[in-house]
Amino acid sequence: MEKVFVIKIGGNIIDDEVKLAAFLQEFAGIFGSSASTPHKPLGILVHGGGKLATRLAAELGIQQQLVDGRRITDAETLKIVTMVYAGYINKNMVAQLQSYNCNAIGLSGADGNIIQAHKRVHASIDYGFVGDVDSVDVSFIQSLLNRQLSVVLAPVTHDKQGQLLNTNADTIAQETAKALTGIYDVQLVYSFEKSGVLLDVADEASVIPVLNYTYYQQLKTPQPGSGEPKIFAGMIPKLDNAFAALNSGVQKVIIGKAEQLHQLINGTAGTTIVHE
Amino acid sequence: MEKVFVIKIGGNIIDDEVKLAAFLQEFAGIFGSSASTPHKPLGILVHGGGKLATRLAAELGIQQQLVDGRRITDAETLKIVTMVYAGYINKNMVAQLQSYNCNAIGLSGADGNIIQAHKRVHASIDYGFVGDVDSVDVSFIQSLLNRQLSVVLAPVTHDKQGQLLNTNADTIAQETAKALTGIYDVQLVYSFEKSGVLLDVADEASVIPVLNYTYYQQLKTPQPGSGEPKIFAGMIPKLDNAFAALNSGVQKVIIGKAEQLHQLINGTAGTTIVHE
Repeated sequence: MEKVFVIKIGGNIIDDEVKLAAFLQEFAGIFGSSASTPHKPLGILVHGGGKLATRLAAELGIQQQLVDGRRITDAETLKIVTMVYAGYINKNMVAQLQSYNCNAIGLSGADGNIIQAHKRVHASIDYGFVGDVDSVDVSFIQSLLNRQLSVVLAPVTHDKQGQLLNTNADTIAQETAKALTGIYDVQLVYSFEKSGVLLDVADEASVIPVLNYTYYQQLKTPQPGSGEPKIFAGMIPKLDNAFAALNSGVQKVIIGKAEQLHQLINGTAGTTIVHE
Repeated sequence: MEKVFVIKIGGNIIDDEVKLAAFLQEFAGIFGSSASTPHKPLGILVHGGGKLATRLAAELGIQQQLVDGRRITDAETLKIVTMVYAGYINKNMVAQLQSYNCNAIGLSGADGNIIQAHKRVHASIDYGFVGDVDSVDVSFIQSLLNRQLSVVLAPVTHDKQGQLLNTNADTIAQETAKALTGIYDVQLVYSFEKSGVLLDVADEASVIPVLNYTYYQQLKTPQPGSGEPKIFAGMIPKLDNAFAALNSGVQKVIIGKAEQLHQLINGTAGTTIVHE
């Protein structure tokens, strides 16, 4: 089966113009096809929002609502999310990729009905216009990849009833990766500001190169002295999702630094999450 | 040859939520394909910006610069244009069309390198980030239309050097229509708030049903009494463009009211511009 890489790029890179340009240039070098080099691996880029949306909301005097640390998406916030994520960030990334000879296409979940979602249902919290993914149109993605296009997905979906929905970019990456299994050999890359999953959160050199489920369970166990797990608590949801993706047929999940995209893909940097 | 309609929708409709919804529902009824009705005519929708961009700029304290009545697109204005046109308006239109069972895809010119442009060169005025169209990728548009997708184009292009450019929506519609001739039987529809080309601008009932080049030259001639042409001066650039499109192989240009889309396409409303 042909390989597809689904690459999530985190917010910190998006906020840094120089780092973002370097990342996109590297992405283009790996995935960008042209008439002379038509057989590069296939790439899907999923981006979050960075701080621009927060800044714009502040400038417009729109209050951010948080419930249990989760951002609530009211109508005004959704408007900003749509403008900034699906508009400004998505189109600028695509234009930059084009300049590096990577033929990219930027899409929201509404475009071609590529990702359909529903407004989140929760017993006690109304998250507002937040979407949980129902389906990903694999056949449409495949037709774009077949044209040697790199697909750039914004974290905005829709409910097929006319409502756009704010959707977590990690989730978009994971659901897209899962949907493509069976047709492609899918690898999911979470690129962010850290070098990988660290044994010691204060030490960037303590990257765990390969993490399997058994080892992960050990690292999650509270330690005798501190009562804390050995692994950084903030990584646990990401890793739980990574193992869920593997259970759904994704071949590999790789977590690491955005600046090392090439090495992440080659398995020479970051943490590779594997079944066993 | 198969028919394609390229439909430009004007700003006044975009600003009116109720009229816009009605227009999109009508568009979906004409062009929206589904498994049960796969053989509808092919449609491309080109939208302008409406007043939302101006309003957002005002809220953010960004001054609009005008030179000779032309809006200058500085970096801050381009940011707003990208957010509002390619983000908010484009994605909301697509989501609405999806809700009416019309599988639509919203694109800027950067997406799939669909419309490449260059920064406008002018002897005395620096228009800023305004783009004049160089090329339209017909083969990519064709592949989308072949998948029964309705293409929704935002008036934002790029220069293939990483720069997004603000581009007039009438021009996008015209250049797209021209590029598609030879492959399709192309009809170009300019839908706006008037019922068509009027003999008397104050009388909505004075629509000229068919306007050929000879008649147009007569209407453009300054009248003996007033020294004014019989036709409304504001229509002249639109009509010059319409005849240019016909000269480039577009079959028909139709100008009329957005609320009458069905009749415009059937030739029972609006003004049809023809060669002779």
